Amino acid sequence: MNSSNSLLCVGLDIDAARMTVASSPTLQQLKDFTRMVIDCTMDSVAAYKLNFAFFEHYGWEGFRWIEEVVEYIDKRRFTIADAKRGDISNSAKHYAMSIFDRMGFDAVTVNPYMGRDAILPFLSNPQKGVFVICLTSNKSASDLQLQLVNDHPLYHKVVEMVKDLNEYDNCGLVVGATQPMELSHIRQAAGDMPFLIPGIGAQGGDLESSVREGNKGGIALINVSRSVLYAGDQTEKSIGDAARDYQNKINSVLQNMDMTVDG
Amino acid sequence: MNSSNSLLCVGLDIDAARMTVASSPTLQQLKDFTRMVIDCTMDSVAAYKLNFAFFEHYGWEGFRWIEEVVEYIDKRRFTIADAKRGDISNSAKHYAMSIFDRMGFDAVTVNPYMGRDAILPFLSNPQKGVFVICLTSNKSASDLQLQLVNDHPLYHKVVEMVKDLNEYDNCGLVVGATQPMELSHIRQAAGDMPFLIPGIGAQGGDLESSVREGNKGGIALINVSRSVLYAGDQTEKSIGDAARDYQNKINSVLQNMDMTVDG
Repeated sequence: MNSSNSLLCVGLDIDAARMTVASSPTLQQLKDFTRMVIDCTMDSVAAYKLNFAFFEHYGWEGFRWIEEVVEYIDKRRFTIADAKRGDISNSAKHYAMSIFDRMGFDAVTVNPYMGRDAILPFLSNPQKGVFVICLTSNKSASDLQLQLVNDHPLYHKVVEMVKDLNEYDNCGLVVGATQPMELSHIRQAAGDMPFLIPGIGAQGGDLESSVREGNKGGIALINVSRSVLYAGDQTEKSIGDAARDYQNKINSVLQNMDMTVDG
Repeated sequence: MNSSNSLLCVGLDIDAARMTVASSPTLQQLKDFTRMVIDCTMDSVAAYKLNFAFFEHYGWEGFRWIEEVVEYIDKRRFTIADAKRGDISNSAKHYAMSIFDRMGFDAVTVNPYMGRDAILPFLSNPQKGVFVICLTSNKSASDLQLQLVNDHPLYHKVVEMVKDLNEYDNCGLVVGATQPMELSHIRQAAGDMPFLIPGIGAQGGDLESSVREGNKGGIALINVSRSVLYAGDQTEKSIGDAARDYQNKINSVLQNMDMTVDG
């Protein structure tokens, strides 16, 4: 999963409204921009995460764009379908077939609300991974995730459930860059399961504590989207520099922990 | 929403593996079958529900198929995107834009795990509806949905949250056809909010109790997928008869309750 001396994941949340290349970029301009971002960040990243929302905005053409992006990355880096799928049995199997077999993603994000039936169908191929949404950093995470069940927040149940399901060692957790304390507790409970940590950069999560707590005893991929994609004047140089800068910051936190990234 | 003397929703879960038209039906054969199903059930249904999983199986071509199906229904019936979306803020807005504005669906199913931030972006247009997943009928619903929070199952929190958000009267709940007792409790808590009840037919839910408890003081759409789509020899007559049969059964339960369907 990591041959790049990096734990940086760049989120390809391509948003026409934030681009400066044109006032109303065409789909072709969005596609060109995406390829440019991949070209100039490839050397700095471990993975790319595609948030399906930004693609589905364009209907079936957006879905074709997703397939083109995975093809363009062409297995040079780990690819995560941030599709937040949450259905069971036959439906979940069809989603898994689509995302893993047809589109060729390495991993997918999955929503745990329907329980293990919603996760299991994605786990049958040990070569493909699942990041289950555990604790998110939005304000209304408190509506369900932080509700107390036997004196513990509900998301602890998710950690336990995913640990139970991790027979093939292909499960991970999505843990928002929130309070370092919560991240530390989840790391202790989850053992060495990989984490995917979004919310860094424009979304305000703290990079240093996320890297430190997430990587104590397991790997944590750090996802950055807007702060890389829309860096500076959005040229290859600005975007590439922003990615290198995040890679270096992450690696220097790891070095202070006496850890280096494998590879 | 209902001009058809019916509370039946037919789920378009088109599964090549269950079709008898050919041993490996082409995408065109699946599309033809879908149109035939719509033609011969139109007079018996209030709504169609498209489970995105069965379409996404075919990648971008499946997504184009979704758009073609909505276009073919052409507002003659209420359309529900069973996409179980579960993301927040900007991402949720893009999903809403795609499903409501671009594809033209009337309603969408949404997953509540990330809290109200995951629901609100779908509610801004009072003409478009959201069915939030509340209680599902799969076995592992117990993993999270039935966990006790202050002595009440977690899904009660979902009912409260959705009631709070229902300013424009465009919220509903997905409640699986499970124990009549639970359905009855949710109906009491939810007031007159519309329900979408899947799990009838091949999935084993009891039709009579679902119709009765779901429709006490509010409308409940009853979704049937496999038992209609793959009825008998899968001809227009068999499928049309199966839909009419469900419509009649539902209406006769309502008549015994001294209720009729508006329209």
